[in-house]
Amino acid sequence: MTVRFAETDAQGVVHNANYLVWFELARVAYLAEHTDGYQALRDQGIEALVIESHVRYRIPARFDDRLRIHARVRDVRGARFRYEYAVTRGDELIADGWTQHACVEAATFRPTRIPPALRAAIVRAESSS
Amino acid sequence: MTVRFAETDAQGVVHNANYLVWFELARVAYLAEHTDGYQALRDQGIEALVIESHVRYRIPARFDDRLRIHARVRDVRGARFRYEYAVTRGDELIADGWTQHACVEAATFRPTRIPPALRAAIVRAESSS
Amino acid sequence: MTVRFAETDAQGVVHNANYLVWFELARVAYLAEHTDGYQALRDQGIEALVIESHVRYRIPARFDDRLRIHARVRDVRGARFRYEYAVTRGDELIADGWTQHACVEAATFRPTRIPPALRAAIVRAESSS
Amino acid sequence: MTVRFAETDAQGVVHNANYLVWFELARVAYLAEHTDGYQALRDQGIEALVIESHVRYRIPARFDDRLRIHARVRDVRGARFRYEYAVTRGDELIADGWTQHACVEAATFRPTRIPPALRAAIVRAESSS
Repeated sequence: MTVRFAETDAQGVVHNANYLVWFELARVAYLAEHTDGYQALRDQGIEALVIESHVRYRIPARFDDRLRIHARVRDVRGARFRYEYAVTRGDELIADGWTQHACVEAATFRPTRIPPALRAAIVRAESSS
Repeated sequence: MTVRFAETDAQGVVHNANYLVWFELARVAYLAEHTDGYQALRDQGIEALVIESHVRYRIPARFDDRLRIHARVRDVRGARFRYEYAVTRGDELIADGWTQHACVEAATFRPTRIPPALRAAIVRAESSS
Repeated sequence: MTVRFAETDAQGVVHNANYLVWFELARVAYLAEHTDGYQALRDQGIEALVIESHVRYRIPARFDDRLRIHARVRDVRGARFRYEYAVTRGDELIADGWTQHACVEAATFRPTRIPPALRAAIVRAESSS
Repeated sequence: MTVRFAETDAQGVVHNANYLVWFELARVAYLAEHTDGYQALRDQGIEALVIESHVRYRIPARFDDRLRIHARVRDVRGARFRYEYAVTRGDELIADGWTQHACVEAATFRPTRIPPALRAAIVRAESSS
């Protein structure tokens, strides 16, 4: 992906909150590649809430930089799972981080186990990579 | 309101898209002051969609500027109404604009007439100002 | 481009302010395709400020929609020029609009004529399309 | 502060990235209350970069919620310092987290020690609270 001008701030670099938006893009792409997609999960009445996030900003990213966001899933258990990310620009590591997620019923926001099909798809994706 | 650092961009001034967010803040404040509030409207199963927006950016706004957003409603008819805005910094006019709205049923996004109580509240607010 | 989850709001559709961010993406892509790019303009000490914007929202866009943003330039004169946009999803027109721009010196924000090379590149791009 | 409609997403709750924007609001307010303000720091040619961020999302926040963001500074040493945050809604803890910062020269983004006046102001603020 390419850094948007709207993602910069008056420091001339990307605002720190946007990395969490990029992490989300990587999650959506991950689900699209390895499962039926995020919308399919939502159509089952399930949301995957972000319950914790962590970002280390190593090198400031700038407007028009071409970046790659790498994502993998770790620690799938019960209602919870974790994504780990690395943001790279060519050979440079721009940032890394992780987000912890909990599956909930969309209507009540009550915790619910990860749907078995999703769990199986994640296991398949991670064992082949 | 005070300009947020996250609302600036690498030009060092506020990014143009944020004025539409500010217009929305003014709408929410308007409804809170003169009616039962925006959430009450949503609780009735009605959404007020933005169907057109217009902004004139006259003077760039900067981080930490203290601004006022003035809003009034015009042209209430059927499902539609229009807000007009002025953004000021002290005596200066920073920007002005308007947004055109249509009431829809939240479930179907089908047009629906403005609820009579809302319409009456708007007429009352505008005739007293 | 694909609609980001972060671009939606609690109405379940894309928040109206994001269309102005998309218009900017189209401008950056236009400059990258037809000129030396937006950063080159900034490196000359010139900014192209948005001085007016207009959007008509015709059909709500939703998470994960694949959209195209079409842009063309009109009315190049002195320091000013105008972009016109259409946002489409397959055959549907989701939104259209325009933005009016003024070239300024980045240091002083004083109006300055459009650089001749940029003007020539725009004329070339528009006559061939 | 009051949750903006634009800060929600199609899950009906506040998008996770916005908490980092709120943390920044709290930092700006902290500097305004206890020091000469963030802009004064920038006017000295110093930026305080975010080099790490952590958020725990405990209870989803919703449109129009009235929240308080509490901030304090910890671990001031050399070029670095840390803010700790708590976001509350009435008696409820909505979220907490921290951000780690490094002072840099704005022109070069090279690390530089925290200006003594800022350091003294922080020590004063934290010892009186």
